[in-house]
Amino acid sequence: MKDWLRFSVAFWHTFRGTGVDPFGAPTKFWPWEDGTNSIAMAKRRMRANFEFINKLGVDRWCFHDRDIAPEGKTLQETNSNLDEVVKLAKTLQGNNIRPLWGTAQLFMHPRYMHGAATSSELVVYVYAAAQVKKAMEVTHYLGGENYVFWGGREGYQTLLNTDMEFELDHMAKFLEAAAAYKRKIGFTGTLLIEPKPQEPTKHQYDWDAATTTNFLRKYGLIGDFKLNIECNHATLSGHSCHHDVETARINGLLGNIDANSGDAQTGWDTDQFLTDTREATMIMLSVIKNGGLSPGGLNFDAKLRRESTDVEDLFIAHIVGMDTLARGLRYAAKLIEDGSLAKLIHKRYSSFHNELGALIEAGKADFEMLEKKAMEWGEPTVASAKQELAEMIFNSVL
Amino acid sequence: MKDWLRFSVAFWHTFRGTGVDPFGAPTKFWPWEDGTNSIAMAKRRMRANFEFINKLGVDRWCFHDRDIAPEGKTLQETNSNLDEVVKLAKTLQGNNIRPLWGTAQLFMHPRYMHGAATSSELVVYVYAAAQVKKAMEVTHYLGGENYVFWGGREGYQTLLNTDMEFELDHMAKFLEAAAAYKRKIGFTGTLLIEPKPQEPTKHQYDWDAATTTNFLRKYGLIGDFKLNIECNHATLSGHSCHHDVETARINGLLGNIDANSGDAQTGWDTDQFLTDTREATMIMLSVIKNGGLSPGGLNFDAKLRRESTDVEDLFIAHIVGMDTLARGLRYAAKLIEDGSLAKLIHKRYSSFHNELGALIEAGKADFEMLEKKAMEWGEPTVASAKQELAEMIFNSVL
Amino acid sequence: MKDWLRFSVAFWHTFRGTGVDPFGAPTKFWPWEDGTNSIAMAKRRMRANFEFINKLGVDRWCFHDRDIAPEGKTLQETNSNLDEVVKLAKTLQGNNIRPLWGTAQLFMHPRYMHGAATSSELVVYVYAAAQVKKAMEVTHYLGGENYVFWGGREGYQTLLNTDMEFELDHMAKFLEAAAAYKRKIGFTGTLLIEPKPQEPTKHQYDWDAATTTNFLRKYGLIGDFKLNIECNHATLSGHSCHHDVETARINGLLGNIDANSGDAQTGWDTDQFLTDTREATMIMLSVIKNGGLSPGGLNFDAKLRRESTDVEDLFIAHIVGMDTLARGLRYAAKLIEDGSLAKLIHKRYSSFHNELGALIEAGKADFEMLEKKAMEWGEPTVASAKQELAEMIFNSVL
Amino acid sequence: MKDWLRFSVAFWHTFRGTGVDPFGAPTKFWPWEDGTNSIAMAKRRMRANFEFINKLGVDRWCFHDRDIAPEGKTLQETNSNLDEVVKLAKTLQGNNIRPLWGTAQLFMHPRYMHGAATSSELVVYVYAAAQVKKAMEVTHYLGGENYVFWGGREGYQTLLNTDMEFELDHMAKFLEAAAAYKRKIGFTGTLLIEPKPQEPTKHQYDWDAATTTNFLRKYGLIGDFKLNIECNHATLSGHSCHHDVETARINGLLGNIDANSGDAQTGWDTDQFLTDTREATMIMLSVIKNGGLSPGGLNFDAKLRRESTDVEDLFIAHIVGMDTLARGLRYAAKLIEDGSLAKLIHKRYSSFHNELGALIEAGKADFEMLEKKAMEWGEPTVASAKQELAEMIFNSVL
Repeated sequence: MKDWLRFSVAFWHTFRGTGVDPFGAPTKFWPWEDGTNSIAMAKRRMRANFEFINKLGVDRWCFHDRDIAPEGKTLQETNSNLDEVVKLAKTLQGNNIRPLWGTAQLFMHPRYMHGAATSSELVVYVYAAAQVKKAMEVTHYLGGENYVFWGGREGYQTLLNTDMEFELDHMAKFLEAAAAYKRKIGFTGTLLIEPKPQEPTKHQYDWDAATTTNFLRKYGLIGDFKLNIECNHATLSGHSCHHDVETARINGLLGNIDANSGDAQTGWDTDQFLTDTREATMIMLSVIKNGGLSPGGLNFDAKLRRESTDVEDLFIAHIVGMDTLARGLRYAAKLIEDGSLAKLIHKRYSSFHNELGALIEAGKADFEMLEKKAMEWGEPTVASAKQELAEMIFNSVL
Repeated sequence: MKDWLRFSVAFWHTFRGTGVDPFGAPTKFWPWEDGTNSIAMAKRRMRANFEFINKLGVDRWCFHDRDIAPEGKTLQETNSNLDEVVKLAKTLQGNNIRPLWGTAQLFMHPRYMHGAATSSELVVYVYAAAQVKKAMEVTHYLGGENYVFWGGREGYQTLLNTDMEFELDHMAKFLEAAAAYKRKIGFTGTLLIEPKPQEPTKHQYDWDAATTTNFLRKYGLIGDFKLNIECNHATLSGHSCHHDVETARINGLLGNIDANSGDAQTGWDTDQFLTDTREATMIMLSVIKNGGLSPGGLNFDAKLRRESTDVEDLFIAHIVGMDTLARGLRYAAKLIEDGSLAKLIHKRYSSFHNELGALIEAGKADFEMLEKKAMEWGEPTVASAKQELAEMIFNSVL
Repeated sequence: MKDWLRFSVAFWHTFRGTGVDPFGAPTKFWPWEDGTNSIAMAKRRMRANFEFINKLGVDRWCFHDRDIAPEGKTLQETNSNLDEVVKLAKTLQGNNIRPLWGTAQLFMHPRYMHGAATSSELVVYVYAAAQVKKAMEVTHYLGGENYVFWGGREGYQTLLNTDMEFELDHMAKFLEAAAAYKRKIGFTGTLLIEPKPQEPTKHQYDWDAATTTNFLRKYGLIGDFKLNIECNHATLSGHSCHHDVETARINGLLGNIDANSGDAQTGWDTDQFLTDTREATMIMLSVIKNGGLSPGGLNFDAKLRRESTDVEDLFIAHIVGMDTLARGLRYAAKLIEDGSLAKLIHKRYSSFHNELGALIEAGKADFEMLEKKAMEWGEPTVASAKQELAEMIFNSVL
Repeated sequence: MKDWLRFSVAFWHTFRGTGVDPFGAPTKFWPWEDGTNSIAMAKRRMRANFEFINKLGVDRWCFHDRDIAPEGKTLQETNSNLDEVVKLAKTLQGNNIRPLWGTAQLFMHPRYMHGAATSSELVVYVYAAAQVKKAMEVTHYLGGENYVFWGGREGYQTLLNTDMEFELDHMAKFLEAAAAYKRKIGFTGTLLIEPKPQEPTKHQYDWDAATTTNFLRKYGLIGDFKLNIECNHATLSGHSCHHDVETARINGLLGNIDANSGDAQTGWDTDQFLTDTREATMIMLSVIKNGGLSPGGLNFDAKLRRESTDVEDLFIAHIVGMDTLARGLRYAAKLIEDGSLAKLIHKRYSSFHNELGALIEAGKADFEMLEKKAMEWGEPTVASAKQELAEMIFNSVL
């Protein structure tokens, strides 16, 4: 099961999540925190991270550059802070642990308020390039298997003051340069874009899997990037998580899954641990179809509820998350072994399994040929879609 | 103003809308209706249509094949019914009126319950091809300027019984054949796809402008198709209408606008006449940027409320719609003449108007060059986005 | 288990559901239908209903007056049609089967387009009163255990043409008269109001459980009515089904549950059979707290998907629905037996289990007394809410 | 116009809004801020507040206790800090300015993470009581015209760990004690509850106007409290702002309006300045029907966009807000003077203006009497609702 369930702990939620929300101050006061943002604190926190990962028995972690080391007064100093913490992380990783992916945090600092690659300010574009360059180097140094772009500020608040086309062109150039730099430094991990529809912006350019794929196609970037689908982002964009995972998969771009969950009745990112075994089963059906996710995996991009303030809650939450996905994998495997659902689908489409079906799929059936057939055959009869039966089969394995 | 406001009356809503809704029976009992679905009735209805169009002073109309003529017992008979009514329409059009676009209705009849081009049944794919072939011929015959595809059933109700990739491949082949047939018959109008996220399906493949564009790119269809953006569909997919119009525009695909409106608090297609002059102004800003919509236009894909049952309500509704868009055009023109908003945007992005900006946009600024600059320049300063000022300017012209 | 799971078959969905949707014609062509709306057909359909109920092994059914018998030319004739069919139903019910509830259909016919009790037309208010009178008599005659009001048209499309206060006053008078008539005829069943937020109206007055309760309180109707909570309506109003069931329960008004499900990503009533065992478990937790629902029950207000067209699909759907709720009941019972969740909640609130807590709850702790305590006690410490642990416990019984 | 437009500046957004969002650090660095949370800073900020209010020419302001003065180490110290700043505010108010309302901030501090009046911890209930006591005193001292309760944390994150009934009972006791204390200190301002559906909680108990009214009725609090309707909260609960304002009004509870706006496509509170003159017109129609809002008013509970960082943006935003509502008032007055809309509505309901209508409204028309009428009258005819005409009239005054 380990090969299918390449779990990863998200440093930012688990070690930098403070319980802050738009109406509330921090609620977490972990015993290892000393209230400073010093390098010493960054190191102690990193040790806590690896103690946690080892106790949990997981092999991977994910991080933003700014979460693991504090900003300095200059970019040079910031980079050197990062180097110092990363060196420690490398030691603590040992032989078994490595980053599932690294990324640059291009949304918290006020310099990024208009975006990073899509900022209206040249100097910010330039600064962001330098930051991503360093984050890619660091990810590479730590043996990271992927590198992620989440463009939380790459979008707009109102079209009244925005040149969307200009901004999208810049985003493409930025990603092009990132891909070039990846090759230059010999980093062989996958570059991943993580779609999200909105929040913090009113509209985020990487809205969902299909929108992001369109962007990659338009700008000729599709060979260089895959997608990191986050369940909560998928549902915010109006899709089921399963839908966006499948959309990525059939576009050949399913690279990684941020395995969390939103709340079906709230309009913002709640980033909850996934506890719904039904949803986990559907996701794992796609993962299996994809032949697994490697070198990607299942990142717990999920946070404790603000009101969960015990250290043990960190363990409980990850254990529920792991357990849910493991059950999802087993249920999905049972469904596949059982075969009834696959048979139902195969039967549904079986009318195409013949010569004319093949002609159509080869693009050799023109409208005149088809019209002749239609005239000849008369009124079509159509079979039941058997949705309730499919749901019954699905339920039978849970 | 006439060149910018290429209005069209939608036959289906205005002449086939009965007031039916999921919980209610017909409420419209127009004096010209005799309660039958005969050819004679179809002709009387067509005369009413042209009387209405002439009284309204509009030059264009849009239609579905099955709305203007009844189905017969066979496809042959159905086609001959259609020919008979279309012949009358041709006469009634005279020299000044023509279809903005025609389309085939591929969603009402139970044969299409699993889709048309994406049906699980080969025989339905074949039948749909024959139907579209005829609808294209008829549109061409009537001097239609465009031909539209709205795939109301091209989607799924549940992924549990659906092979999404298989269905999308079929949709592409179908559209490819349609484009080939268009060329074959010498129809020079634009082929348009109309995105909608869902309803009647849980997920419709042409979700929004970006999703549809991705589809066109993936299957190499982008030269052959443009988009018909409907405002109510845009808002159902989580975007403002202005956003989806702009997305189509910057992808070079803005072909037509279905100028209606939804209700901000309902989750289904209400297809109301657009009465919000603010929204109309934003749409017209994009239309002007696009150099107009021709050969596309502004189709009133909007229906009287179910409770509006007087014949005069049909006129009132269209007049409000026309008036709203005309005011939108004038306000947009005023905004452009005033120039303040354009200046605000130009200033926002002005830091890119230099040598380095040009290098970035030419793809010649690699990460190493940019890092050097970032180190040199230090912490970026960023200007206010002036959203409230932009809103004040916008309000000032209304 | 039978006492807890008082299942009922909904005549309208199962026997009058045609597969029509806003974009599609009927898809169901049941072998017992002859295409007419005659009394003979109504009787054959009623026989099919009882054959189905008996085969399914269920003891209850629900109906609208107009679904079981056709309208005549006059109200007198309509009533006599109804009597004829109801007489047959009475026979077919035998000793074991009875209506969980009956109701009047006050939304399909165009006369009700502006509402029934809230119509702007006096004559419609009057007509609706006559219709409800008869529907109550008929329900009583059949031994119905409850009578339901679903005000699908009691609401508005726009406030611009609506006097909301006037309409709500009328609704209250109407329900008051209904309660009086119930007493007059000696009907001892419960009168139930079924909340729904919108659809077909833009706003329906009985928005959700809390709104409807406010209405009942305002107009002094709370002793006479309880609530029928429908899951799909609850989620459309922005609540989980569990929330609205609980809201009804703690207001002392939980009378019945329409056990269906919506789609988490669609903004309209999909009325699907409930297949999610997690949701079923949460609902059954409330049902157990309520000491059951009797004389109410669990009505399958759910319809086959439009694309499910085999007779066996009717059975499959109901069996999945029954199975899901039965599993929900067993899981809920396991949770209660296990006791961990109850213990967690008890512990959370335990700080109130003392003298001051009792004073507060008795309304005897004024602000001055509390301020003294606050000054004395200093900064509060607060415990973790243990949400993830609660979710783990919940998952452990499934 | 001043009597109708009782504007107020919200201290928290305008002077404590930092530009923080869930993904971003502060962006506002106002020149008067020194980066500390000292009393000296609190006083300088208060002076800035009154300089701003005076320059803007507004007569009212609103505040939370914790926004105007820093917390001390103990509640005693906190109260004394508050007293010191409030004393200054009293002076700065002069004769013309006073609080529209004051309130206690019971949601930011971690002690309130489980709620204040609905906290699971007794000690927090007690602490909150002391805080509200002081905030009421301070509001009274400053000549505040109202006192507001916004229960941002009075709700739940999951029902799995929550006893909703227990919590609601506590909330009622808390408000009962607040009303008693108000009378005790001779504060004659109105107590207002501000509904919001969710955020930061998954479910907030004061969901919307109707839900809150139900709560007030259930617990016998309706004479002591009115409602403060916030537009953005109304839309988040699935209603138009106009709807919730009207709901408050017809329940006799319209006390104040937080005049802001959300974004129609986002699922969280964006708290934008209202710039839509159409919406402003509808709100002002209700305000006029209510005979004004006094002693309540129109509070600008709205914040600059995070990316608006110039001091002048604060002015621009408030000016747009004031201008929009002033135009709304003038358009509403024009609509009323014009009279066409009122006439349309009067005509719609005119069938009730007779003897039978009066009987119905007096509760004297029983079902038997009405049935007789229905039999006598036959099939009702119903008039058009003229929605498009109403919209045309509405548009004609803008």
